[in-house]
Amino acid sequence: MNYDELLIKRRSIRKFKNEAVSNEIIIEMINESIYAPSSGNEQSWKFSIVSDIKLMKKISDEAKINILKRIELNANDYAKKYKEMLSNINYNIFYNAPSVVFIFGDKKLKNMIINCSLAASYFMMSATSRNLGTCWINFATEIKSPYLLKELGISENFKIVAPIIIGYPEQIPHIPSRKEPEIIKII
Amino acid sequence: MNYDELLIKRRSIRKFKNEAVSNEIIIEMINESIYAPSSGNEQSWKFSIVSDIKLMKKISDEAKINILKRIELNANDYAKKYKEMLSNINYNIFYNAPSVVFIFGDKKLKNMIINCSLAASYFMMSATSRNLGTCWINFATEIKSPYLLKELGISENFKIVAPIIIGYPEQIPHIPSRKEPEIIKII
Repeated sequence: MNYDELLIKRRSIRKFKNEAVSNEIIIEMINESIYAPSSGNEQSWKFSIVSDIKLMKKISDEAKINILKRIELNANDYAKKYKEMLSNINYNIFYNAPSVVFIFGDKKLKNMIINCSLAASYFMMSATSRNLGTCWINFATEIKSPYLLKELGISENFKIVAPIIIGYPEQIPHIPSRKEPEIIKII
Repeated sequence: MNYDELLIKRRSIRKFKNEAVSNEIIIEMINESIYAPSSGNEQSWKFSIVSDIKLMKKISDEAKINILKRIELNANDYAKKYKEMLSNINYNIFYNAPSVVFIFGDKKLKNMIINCSLAASYFMMSATSRNLGTCWINFATEIKSPYLLKELGISENFKIVAPIIIGYPEQIPHIPSRKEPEIIKII
């Protein structure tokens, strides 16, 4: 796919066809993601692929509970505007996508969050180039259950940066409005 | 440019032709960068474009001094391995590129670093699609001089995430080796 086309075509997808994405394709996309640059060529990204719908439901339930608890404790929590949505028992944070890929890394590495974000950007573009849809699900960074983290291979030294759902789009939304970029200085 | 080609062609470029990149082209690329997704469609990225070689030299000198000072104070500093390079008076952290774009944002916004990293990833791809070269210059995040920060339009509430040099490549290096991606779990 041409880059100009890809740029416009990448959307955050939240409605998927009832069709699995094979691990083979997901691994191909991970192999492309690591072409991202990284600080000092550190490549401090790790990946776990989850296509077990029951496990995804457990992660969704745990994340929703954790965020709702936090909102109760802090009236200014950024997620407050999502309270009603998160309280809906039928709401799954993964939007019933067939798979989610967790990109994560070692907390103590200085530029790990940036490196994982760059790999995530590449991953989302690789998906678009295959007519697959993705969405970065920030809520899924909020899991704390040792059982779930162990299932995902995420030890306590690691931090989840980018949980990205993937599937075949059922519906491609319009491009959300963009503000004019703020170019503060041209010197 | 086809995405498969772009993926392989994007390199970190540190040798540039003695040829300016017009502000018009840089602004075009910024306009493409904001197609990046952002947390809650927050678009918390700001840009400053610097093509004033004297100012770039001042920023380079200040960053080098700050990092060298830090290395003196901390034997385990991550930048210690660059001490000799940073001590070389002829070393310019911007590799004599004709321009640098600073991507930065408001420190208090929760996902600002991730959002700016995604815009930076798009910016580097937009450059490659125009046969331009870029390199993320992390050293340039280390400026503290109020004079220089003011010149760049970066107030104390803002944090520099991605300083990216841009120019026409004189030399495209080989692709640095990549480790096999660590896929920790497939569930």
